Amino acid sequence: MKEDLEKVYQKVKPFVHRTPVLTSHLMDEIAGCHLFFKCENFQKMGAFKMRGAINAILNLSEEQKKKGVVTHSSGNFAQALSLAAKNLGIPAYIVMPNSAPQVKKAAVKTYGGKITECEPTLEAREKAATKIQQETGATFLHPSNNLDVILGQGTSAYELLQEQPDLDFVVTPVGGGGLIAGTALAVKHFGKNCKCVAGEPKATDDAFRSMQSGKIETNVSANTIADGLKTHLGDINFPIILKYVDQIILVSETEIIEALRLIWERMKIVVEPSSAVALAAVLNQKEKFKNKKVGIIISGGNVDLSKLPF
Amino acid sequence: MKEDLEKVYQKVKPFVHRTPVLTSHLMDEIAGCHLFFKCENFQKMGAFKMRGAINAILNLSEEQKKKGVVTHSSGNFAQALSLAAKNLGIPAYIVMPNSAPQVKKAAVKTYGGKITECEPTLEAREKAATKIQQETGATFLHPSNNLDVILGQGTSAYELLQEQPDLDFVVTPVGGGGLIAGTALAVKHFGKNCKCVAGEPKATDDAFRSMQSGKIETNVSANTIADGLKTHLGDINFPIILKYVDQIILVSETEIIEALRLIWERMKIVVEPSSAVALAAVLNQKEKFKNKKVGIIISGGNVDLSKLPF
Repeated sequence: MKEDLEKVYQKVKPFVHRTPVLTSHLMDEIAGCHLFFKCENFQKMGAFKMRGAINAILNLSEEQKKKGVVTHSSGNFAQALSLAAKNLGIPAYIVMPNSAPQVKKAAVKTYGGKITECEPTLEAREKAATKIQQETGATFLHPSNNLDVILGQGTSAYELLQEQPDLDFVVTPVGGGGLIAGTALAVKHFGKNCKCVAGEPKATDDAFRSMQSGKIETNVSANTIADGLKTHLGDINFPIILKYVDQIILVSETEIIEALRLIWERMKIVVEPSSAVALAAVLNQKEKFKNKKVGIIISGGNVDLSKLPF
Repeated sequence: MKEDLEKVYQKVKPFVHRTPVLTSHLMDEIAGCHLFFKCENFQKMGAFKMRGAINAILNLSEEQKKKGVVTHSSGNFAQALSLAAKNLGIPAYIVMPNSAPQVKKAAVKTYGGKITECEPTLEAREKAATKIQQETGATFLHPSNNLDVILGQGTSAYELLQEQPDLDFVVTPVGGGGLIAGTALAVKHFGKNCKCVAGEPKATDDAFRSMQSGKIETNVSANTIADGLKTHLGDINFPIILKYVDQIILVSETEIIEALRLIWERMKIVVEPSSAVALAAVLNQKEKFKNKKVGIIISGGNVDLSKLPF
């Protein structure tokens, strides 16, 4: 697996930014530990999802590439797959609920994705995606429950550990499970006594409960500001998470908004609420992280500035 | 003067961050030129003002240092002087209008500045500062009309031109005149056929009018979102500006807010409205800057997140 990750990194590298790692004395003082922020908000299309999308497409056969890729997503993966496909000159079909914000549809169109709208239910989304697969022969790529996607997402932590090899922890948010699974694999193979930890909103604590029960749990409601984390784990990423993730820390909506404000005000960077969940987790467990070297994957920076919680 | 600037840079260097220069393909497409953003929002205390404050203090005699420094300011210079003085172990007395926001007073206190409150008039501010000078022997430092401050502010453009020596333009906002004067000197001595341009809000067009009339003009009202630019030029920086600044471009409040939104959304960085004035100037004169290499000094990132214009 270690060699696989190396290979993935070499493949993905020409298509993504090597994002900067930011530090701040003030943030270290507040958190009581040494923080290293891996800024995927500066990644192409504004989120880590670009890494997994590129890797998944690169692993298709030439025949598959010609016919294109399809996914259903209203979030960052729709944009990532559109841009990754555009960069590689292949078609991307994106199924989006007709309730998706105009701004997100516009972003997908900018990156060249071909949008099919459907009713805002999982059933309608899957049906529309299957229909496109049948009509075009395009390959379906899941945003998080796909091993190539997972390994691609792991390249962010891989880069971080190249720069900071002696981190004690790497912390990410957990939603669909792609980022945390990829990060956990990178931490296991490239960290030295490094542990992988996730932050999760209390309002969508399915991953936390899944770790306890040993099976994939879902949420009845998903009332969190961290809108990127409303999805649940999948059968491909869950076994990796169960085996390699040290702990999932739950945080309240107030904690997420406070952490978000801290990052914006002190670090002067624009990040998504989902990204703040990782910092909120560290601030929630100060004793655990005290004086440790802690990497935080800032997952993305695509926010609607008209809808800020401040 | 070239050697002076070199010396200032060497003196200031240990006390400030060498801020990053960010680029963005998307922003280049929008602007129709090649943009290089020198990010002083990532500077210590969040703005370029740290550079001038440090240089001014370093140029005091040992006797003067012991007695400390005094200024009147409710903005970034109050914080900059407090932090610079703290770093050098000398007292900083800050006169602030009693109407100044609590958050700004708190920031000055965090950095160790000793606050004296006064009525919110220029007369009361000057009177309070003079009283402190008399009582403590502290040296008065003006936020922008002081040659050491001006030369210190110029170190941002100096660093930018070290990284990008063949820029065609460097653009800054203009308020009190310290940043643009320092930048103009750096551009003259370290640029190759490089011109220094300023953006200014139409609502406070005193610098624009001063360039036309050849004498320092003031504003009757100052109704702009770019709250760092409400001050007017001084007798030390104005001759430099008159001689070395190529053009002052006026921009509307709508243009400033649009440029601000572009920087936040596309660059994923938190900047002050004043910083967006420089980009707004470039977007206002696309023909002038077409296909050119344009440096933009992002002046700072201290914003009140509760009062955003989005």
